[in-house]
Amino acid sequence: MTTIETQLDDTTFTTYESEVRSYCRNWPAIFDTAQGSWLTSIDGKQYLDFFAGAGALNYGHNHPALKEALIDYLVRDGITHGLDMSTRAKGEFLQTFADRILAPRNLDYKVQFPGPTGTNAVESALKLARKVTGRESIISFTNAFHGMTLGSLSVTGNATKRAGAGVPLVHTTPMPFDNYFDGAVEDFSWFERVLDDHGSGLNRPAAVIVETVQGEGGVNVARAAWLRALQELCADREILMIVDDVQMGCGRTGEFFSFEFAGITPDIVTLSKSIGGYGLPLALTLMKPELDIWAPGEHNGTFRGNNPAFVTATAALNQFWSDDLLTRDVHRKGEIISESFGQLSAEYEALSHRGRGMVQGLVFDEPAQAGEVCALAYEAGLLAETSGPEDQVVKLLPPLTIDEDDLSHGLTILSDAVATVQPTMRAVEK
Amino acid sequence: MTTIETQLDDTTFTTYESEVRSYCRNWPAIFDTAQGSWLTSIDGKQYLDFFAGAGALNYGHNHPALKEALIDYLVRDGITHGLDMSTRAKGEFLQTFADRILAPRNLDYKVQFPGPTGTNAVESALKLARKVTGRESIISFTNAFHGMTLGSLSVTGNATKRAGAGVPLVHTTPMPFDNYFDGAVEDFSWFERVLDDHGSGLNRPAAVIVETVQGEGGVNVARAAWLRALQELCADREILMIVDDVQMGCGRTGEFFSFEFAGITPDIVTLSKSIGGYGLPLALTLMKPELDIWAPGEHNGTFRGNNPAFVTATAALNQFWSDDLLTRDVHRKGEIISESFGQLSAEYEALSHRGRGMVQGLVFDEPAQAGEVCALAYEAGLLAETSGPEDQVVKLLPPLTIDEDDLSHGLTILSDAVATVQPTMRAVEK
Amino acid sequence: MTTIETQLDDTTFTTYESEVRSYCRNWPAIFDTAQGSWLTSIDGKQYLDFFAGAGALNYGHNHPALKEALIDYLVRDGITHGLDMSTRAKGEFLQTFADRILAPRNLDYKVQFPGPTGTNAVESALKLARKVTGRESIISFTNAFHGMTLGSLSVTGNATKRAGAGVPLVHTTPMPFDNYFDGAVEDFSWFERVLDDHGSGLNRPAAVIVETVQGEGGVNVARAAWLRALQELCADREILMIVDDVQMGCGRTGEFFSFEFAGITPDIVTLSKSIGGYGLPLALTLMKPELDIWAPGEHNGTFRGNNPAFVTATAALNQFWSDDLLTRDVHRKGEIISESFGQLSAEYEALSHRGRGMVQGLVFDEPAQAGEVCALAYEAGLLAETSGPEDQVVKLLPPLTIDEDDLSHGLTILSDAVATVQPTMRAVEK
Amino acid sequence: MTTIETQLDDTTFTTYESEVRSYCRNWPAIFDTAQGSWLTSIDGKQYLDFFAGAGALNYGHNHPALKEALIDYLVRDGITHGLDMSTRAKGEFLQTFADRILAPRNLDYKVQFPGPTGTNAVESALKLARKVTGRESIISFTNAFHGMTLGSLSVTGNATKRAGAGVPLVHTTPMPFDNYFDGAVEDFSWFERVLDDHGSGLNRPAAVIVETVQGEGGVNVARAAWLRALQELCADREILMIVDDVQMGCGRTGEFFSFEFAGITPDIVTLSKSIGGYGLPLALTLMKPELDIWAPGEHNGTFRGNNPAFVTATAALNQFWSDDLLTRDVHRKGEIISESFGQLSAEYEALSHRGRGMVQGLVFDEPAQAGEVCALAYEAGLLAETSGPEDQVVKLLPPLTIDEDDLSHGLTILSDAVATVQPTMRAVEK
Repeated sequence: MTTIETQLDDTTFTTYESEVRSYCRNWPAIFDTAQGSWLTSIDGKQYLDFFAGAGALNYGHNHPALKEALIDYLVRDGITHGLDMSTRAKGEFLQTFADRILAPRNLDYKVQFPGPTGTNAVESALKLARKVTGRESIISFTNAFHGMTLGSLSVTGNATKRAGAGVPLVHTTPMPFDNYFDGAVEDFSWFERVLDDHGSGLNRPAAVIVETVQGEGGVNVARAAWLRALQELCADREILMIVDDVQMGCGRTGEFFSFEFAGITPDIVTLSKSIGGYGLPLALTLMKPELDIWAPGEHNGTFRGNNPAFVTATAALNQFWSDDLLTRDVHRKGEIISESFGQLSAEYEALSHRGRGMVQGLVFDEPAQAGEVCALAYEAGLLAETSGPEDQVVKLLPPLTIDEDDLSHGLTILSDAVATVQPTMRAVEK
Repeated sequence: MTTIETQLDDTTFTTYESEVRSYCRNWPAIFDTAQGSWLTSIDGKQYLDFFAGAGALNYGHNHPALKEALIDYLVRDGITHGLDMSTRAKGEFLQTFADRILAPRNLDYKVQFPGPTGTNAVESALKLARKVTGRESIISFTNAFHGMTLGSLSVTGNATKRAGAGVPLVHTTPMPFDNYFDGAVEDFSWFERVLDDHGSGLNRPAAVIVETVQGEGGVNVARAAWLRALQELCADREILMIVDDVQMGCGRTGEFFSFEFAGITPDIVTLSKSIGGYGLPLALTLMKPELDIWAPGEHNGTFRGNNPAFVTATAALNQFWSDDLLTRDVHRKGEIISESFGQLSAEYEALSHRGRGMVQGLVFDEPAQAGEVCALAYEAGLLAETSGPEDQVVKLLPPLTIDEDDLSHGLTILSDAVATVQPTMRAVEK
Repeated sequence: MTTIETQLDDTTFTTYESEVRSYCRNWPAIFDTAQGSWLTSIDGKQYLDFFAGAGALNYGHNHPALKEALIDYLVRDGITHGLDMSTRAKGEFLQTFADRILAPRNLDYKVQFPGPTGTNAVESALKLARKVTGRESIISFTNAFHGMTLGSLSVTGNATKRAGAGVPLVHTTPMPFDNYFDGAVEDFSWFERVLDDHGSGLNRPAAVIVETVQGEGGVNVARAAWLRALQELCADREILMIVDDVQMGCGRTGEFFSFEFAGITPDIVTLSKSIGGYGLPLALTLMKPELDIWAPGEHNGTFRGNNPAFVTATAALNQFWSDDLLTRDVHRKGEIISESFGQLSAEYEALSHRGRGMVQGLVFDEPAQAGEVCALAYEAGLLAETSGPEDQVVKLLPPLTIDEDDLSHGLTILSDAVATVQPTMRAVEK
Repeated sequence: MTTIETQLDDTTFTTYESEVRSYCRNWPAIFDTAQGSWLTSIDGKQYLDFFAGAGALNYGHNHPALKEALIDYLVRDGITHGLDMSTRAKGEFLQTFADRILAPRNLDYKVQFPGPTGTNAVESALKLARKVTGRESIISFTNAFHGMTLGSLSVTGNATKRAGAGVPLVHTTPMPFDNYFDGAVEDFSWFERVLDDHGSGLNRPAAVIVETVQGEGGVNVARAAWLRALQELCADREILMIVDDVQMGCGRTGEFFSFEFAGITPDIVTLSKSIGGYGLPLALTLMKPELDIWAPGEHNGTFRGNNPAFVTATAALNQFWSDDLLTRDVHRKGEIISESFGQLSAEYEALSHRGRGMVQGLVFDEPAQAGEVCALAYEAGLLAETSGPEDQVVKLLPPLTIDEDDLSHGLTILSDAVATVQPTMRAVEK
């Protein structure tokens, strides 16, 4: 086997890769290895990761326990690609997921492997909700993000991404997410009114799909009471409630599912990103047993049995979800970030902050400044990204396993960057 | 780390997994390890694999050269999950793909990583075609299969899968695939006529999407002349031609791209399944440079930078595509299968066969018999599956790397199964 | 010419006519002749008409001046059916409409004859708005009614009528009509917010379509300030404003156009119902000259040149719109109805009322009672109908030309009916 | 009543009327009166009418018997506008239609008045077919014309008119009309194949909608055998058959319904244009009784009870459909036109002709010549129009009641025009 001699530099990517590439434009380093919260580029520079694969690396990069399980599996020629055949790796994952996650929470969801990405899970959830109810319409929420395939895109808010569809996106209606009017309007006044008004013109929905914290949308945090009211509103009208926990699940907000704190049980749940544990593609669609009316093969996909990901997923469940240590850790470290952001917000008038657990956002009145802060952070060796409809939020998604020194280090970089960007801004007068 | 004690048996899967599971119903073994063309179940039984992950394992299971590259990468903590950041693994893949595949074929496609599955590649191809042309409508072909997300499903033929969408599938019109009328009707008489008739009622299409061999559709083989005529028809009318090479690419028909034999250059090509080499999720969308009008991030996805798959993909390109040995191998072994099927078809009136390279189909006049043959084969330790709108075709997709003894062994199992299913059938009178 | 001997009774209709028939179920009389505000049935019973052809008979039945013009035209063999050819009748209508209606109001609308019904006018307005803006989406309002063909139905609120489409109605989103939240929510808080939020998920609209008073929707009255704010909101964002004046135009609210009182100038206006004057089918689509980008024949229809209707339309403009007498009349008689309804609302707790000019609604807390009142009124020789999403509103649309005695007579019948339906209801305690 | 002084000339129309106006561009006369087959312009010039309101004036202009009935009705103050209330005029029409048309043909259709235009009838037919079957998709035919509202437009072939919709037209698929391939392809090979192929990708249709002769489409004539085969194909697969008889019904092809000659009974029939008899707007939707599952008012419209049109419609049925004189007349005069066109086609190589009854088309190989012939005819005082996707057909729709001298006169004008347009063209060599 002869390998191709490669002199890697920028031109490799600009020459061969499509203009659609994105993150590499803000972070032009060429990365090579990674461990825990740190990435190393080919020229040896180290970067602290406050983005964690957009939430796909909750347990950090290349966690030793997961790495060992994965290499063991590969060495002993465990099946890699298994379509939806029964395999030892899948069986052990199912049993472990049931025992570690479902049973302790009194949940009896059936598990579907809809293909290995979040958008596959969302597409299957929408299909199932439509099949169960016989209705077409889905309610999404302002600033939602659910994926890039046609079904998921139709429930996604971002206008630029929607325009990319090339066809009008239909069968969906956006409703205001929690606190969309800064408390000025009662929570479900509009949604409830049009649902119950026979003349409203709203097509009766099959389901709502909701994130408990909107990451891409700008770290918008739904309150427990709002989520409970949404569940009740749906239950009263035989509308299914789908929680898209692709980014916020797997402990990001503390508990395994991001909706646990609200005491609700969605009808359908989507999981992906960190469920594979090691950054390997995997996704689940969970549904209440009575909704599991799929015909065999009605939804399928080549990579729905990504067995290496089952192995690392199982290892991650065993490693992190046998007790509540991680949950308590997340709450504590979330508090640290929140305090740091609180201080910045107190210091600078044009800043505010919001978040839950270890997803935290620093919100700039002046959107461009959020991007400038991230650019300065990158210079200082920190990876952090903006989100929100105007990219006005610096969104932090550090590994849940980050150690506190690294966390402090990163927060200091950010504080310094804010100070640089807002040098002339007066402290808030008290 | 405590692991969950698992007594794996059928009930693990029937208890926890959704009814949507499919292959595991016909092949109820619980598989554990795999090597080359063979899988081993947890109770030690061995199965010869003529399905190869529905075409995702063209180089067999766990090929040693790829395995070594993968384990090396993991051991040295190569980045696993890289979003669309530039990484050494991605750069080496891009350079190798350009040098091994594109350059020798005089192709200058730009490469997009649209997410790691075939349906992601198809969705991005449809989006791009619509963006470039400003039109919504797509032409698909009878018995096409392109994926399960909403955009891909709308260009897929199977009525059951379409019904699963739960919304009417629109913006697409099917046209007859090559030989749809058994030669009775001129190839593009209908398509060309409605395109050029201002009053036909056909919405002017942005693109056609076509497989050169329809695997799921029943091993329907397009002739080179038909593909050339389709390309000409499209070019004359400024309609883009998308070849979906997810299943038929990566050498399945002999050459790397399945369309090479026809001497055509599609505007957009989708690749997935075997491109990762080792059964790991990866997909590419290739587009002519002048079509690369994507805005940064206009299409994205969490797992579009599955770096372990870049590593095995690069190793596979180096291992198999540095010369034409594999291509010649595929043609030779395809011939062996074709001859075996030819003999069966000569022997039994109700059988016929078709295929190209190492995708070959044995077609039963009586659809149920195809399923019976596969069931008998499974009993005898061979994995083979049916396809076609009535599941009337036994479709073979063995690893391209299968050794000839194994190939003969499997073909003998199939011949015996056919003999069992059609015992009373007279030999064809000559 | 031999005529068929017909013994007309109910069975004629129940035997031959489709179940879709509707008004005849509540008003089972077989009507024969009509004059002014009165209809006479075949058995000689007289009925006072407070419905006026759902607003198509603003000038009453068979007004003598219009009748004379029509018969003269027919006698002299004026062209009846003229497609969209230029005819004397059409030319005189256009000139009269320009001189009597447009010029005095400083309007320079171009006039389209889109087919003779309101829904034709709405369909053409939506087409034009989409063509001008290149966008698909239309904003409608809660409880809107715009017609029964597919385009108009998609902007109509009533769930039963929408379901009749048999396909999902798309490309439209409902927004709250004025006072939808009884003053609790700021007028355009939701609409403005989602328009200006790049991440809201609302497809950017081509146009809004609005009635100034929603007749079918339950006599919901938009305030002048709300309409002005809507116009401003649209103008600021390059969204076209369509006022559907099919039912509320032609003097129903006093002025010729129902939007005049608000001082706004919509981009597109639809007229039908009373524009023909004599109950003959006619419709207009008015558009600002710069929007008149239609290609010749791009929208057409067999009966868009209904010349007898041009003749009566012209006569009606000359008869009623040479001065402001009718306008003042409408305001005065509207006041009479409003006072009568005010007294009833004061007397009975479960009643309220609303309206503008001579469209007035008596609103029942208990929807069934509205129907009972109309049934009693019918028994007493008065035609009045319910509207609203739960048919909870007795909606009055008397001829604008009704004399005051008849008006009083009808209002007395209604008051008596209310007293009968609500006998035990206490007077409101003051 | 003061009337507006009008100096009618072209500028009246160009100043006030929208650019969408169409016929008036080719026929710039300002018409005033009409009688039988003749129109008279305001400057006294007479025009022979071979267009007859695009088929809305089968009995000519202002037929005396109908005129008398209409004026009598107006004089005695018969109800003009009756929504869908029962009226004497409607009852007499229903009874007469049942006795004169339905009973003699052993038809038991229920009658719906869907609004007064053809497109209303088509929209209601599509709605009903979708409601009955629970399916969305409709099959239309190449070069069909069914109307300009959104539902009807989606089953119309013309690309320019379709583009006018401003939204993608969906839920419909075109199939080849009879003889679309000039006999080269078996009639329903494509349609039948995709219907019966579970993998074809065709959404299963609720109904087909078909014209027996496509007038707008270019006088394409379906053979009786093709229509019978279509009916059988539909019946076998529980697909409803809708015949749109808006232009071809009411005797245009000889018999009252244009499908009678084929011996078929459609499930749903639409009628409009000439059903009112006098050019007044009226439309019917006929449905087999078992399909009449409408809810009351599920489809409605302000002008569905156009009583003057009921009166003239009844008079027309009595006048023309008490015996078979008109039918025989139409066949005879159709033969005359056909012979004349046959001679022209024999004389000039670049001409052919087709038609049935009194809809006849002269087809030019060179489309522009068809328009030139019509322009010359207009100069000579004859109104005739082109149709077909390239306007390549001179389409004749003279009043069925035209006398033979006038018919000959018009045909001579056309022959002369052809001779002028094709002066250098050799006679066909025999």
